[in-house]
Amino acid sequence: MKARGFLVVLSGPSGAGKNTLLSAVLPRIPDLKYSVSATTRPPRPGEKHGVDYYFLQDDEFQEMIDRGEFLEWAEFAGYRYGTPRRFVEECLAQGLTVITDIDIQGARQIKQRMPDGVFVFLLPPSFEELEKRLHKRGTDSAEAIGRRLKIALEEVAAIVDYDYWILNRDLEEACEQLVAIIRAERARVSRTDLSTLPL
Amino acid sequence: MKARGFLVVLSGPSGAGKNTLLSAVLPRIPDLKYSVSATTRPPRPGEKHGVDYYFLQDDEFQEMIDRGEFLEWAEFAGYRYGTPRRFVEECLAQGLTVITDIDIQGARQIKQRMPDGVFVFLLPPSFEELEKRLHKRGTDSAEAIGRRLKIALEEVAAIVDYDYWILNRDLEEACEQLVAIIRAERARVSRTDLSTLPL
Repeated sequence: MKARGFLVVLSGPSGAGKNTLLSAVLPRIPDLKYSVSATTRPPRPGEKHGVDYYFLQDDEFQEMIDRGEFLEWAEFAGYRYGTPRRFVEECLAQGLTVITDIDIQGARQIKQRMPDGVFVFLLPPSFEELEKRLHKRGTDSAEAIGRRLKIALEEVAAIVDYDYWILNRDLEEACEQLVAIIRAERARVSRTDLSTLPL
Repeated sequence: MKARGFLVVLSGPSGAGKNTLLSAVLPRIPDLKYSVSATTRPPRPGEKHGVDYYFLQDDEFQEMIDRGEFLEWAEFAGYRYGTPRRFVEECLAQGLTVITDIDIQGARQIKQRMPDGVFVFLLPPSFEELEKRLHKRGTDSAEAIGRRLKIALEEVAAIVDYDYWILNRDLEEACEQLVAIIRAERARVSRTDLSTLPL
């Protein structure tokens, strides 16, 4: 009774903790594949090319756009981010679950192209906590943080277009929640090949 | 961010293990309430009135029908089974999750009245296993078992109208699956009061 593959899009305001949550969930679910995004933003300390992101020059990114190699791409806080199409499509064809963390604009594009994807909105516990986290990360200037916060406030309205929400107050709890969502979605009748039923 | 209450309907062929699964899941989920069904069938050994079922006489059952006190009722293998309406409605109004195990006919009626319920189809691992279980239960005559098996085969076609399926090969696994489904459904944006968001 093999389920068809599907894409899980983890989105939410910058600083909500998408990346940390993703890293915690990946080892817990068999056959869950991470779709590495491409970006023109410079690596943060410790980030690795091909693992955290494909770090590209502006012209390299543009070439991928021109060749139609992105499932979605968007500009966010001065940099471009995109989801390479081929990896996702190959995994889905094999019946695997793919997960990706992308910003709200990108998620909106994916929803139009893959309405049967699973859209999960990650919320920071509060606006104050979000501000604290962005400062603590230490990778953005005060101006950039202000810009991200303003965007975050606007972005929360987008939650109405999502299937699920997770409040990122406690990482373990958020992680269990995301695992439950993925398990449940794998058990959806609409994702199942009914010709393989045991009865 | 309190979720609205919803009803989880666990259904599937007779002998799939609905009752056993339900008993295993109830202690694991806080605020999950069991809706006790009413029936005209006599109690099996160990079954208690008000806990496993409300065991009613034919005329008592008929009076409840006449007063509109059932959310659904159906006749199955010579007996009548029904879901008392008041308990379910009171729990849902309080934001609680209610679970009930009912046969396929009853589930179909509930789906018409409560399309936002969560419909879970429980499958026995195989037809042979189903037959074995019904014999082992020792509560039905060979003729009654034959009738139940014939009905089971026809009933599996109803799975297309359900949201989720669970294969009851291993009780612990089936239990985790049902817990995941209920957790996920509680995190659905469409079941959430968005005015209480932290941002």
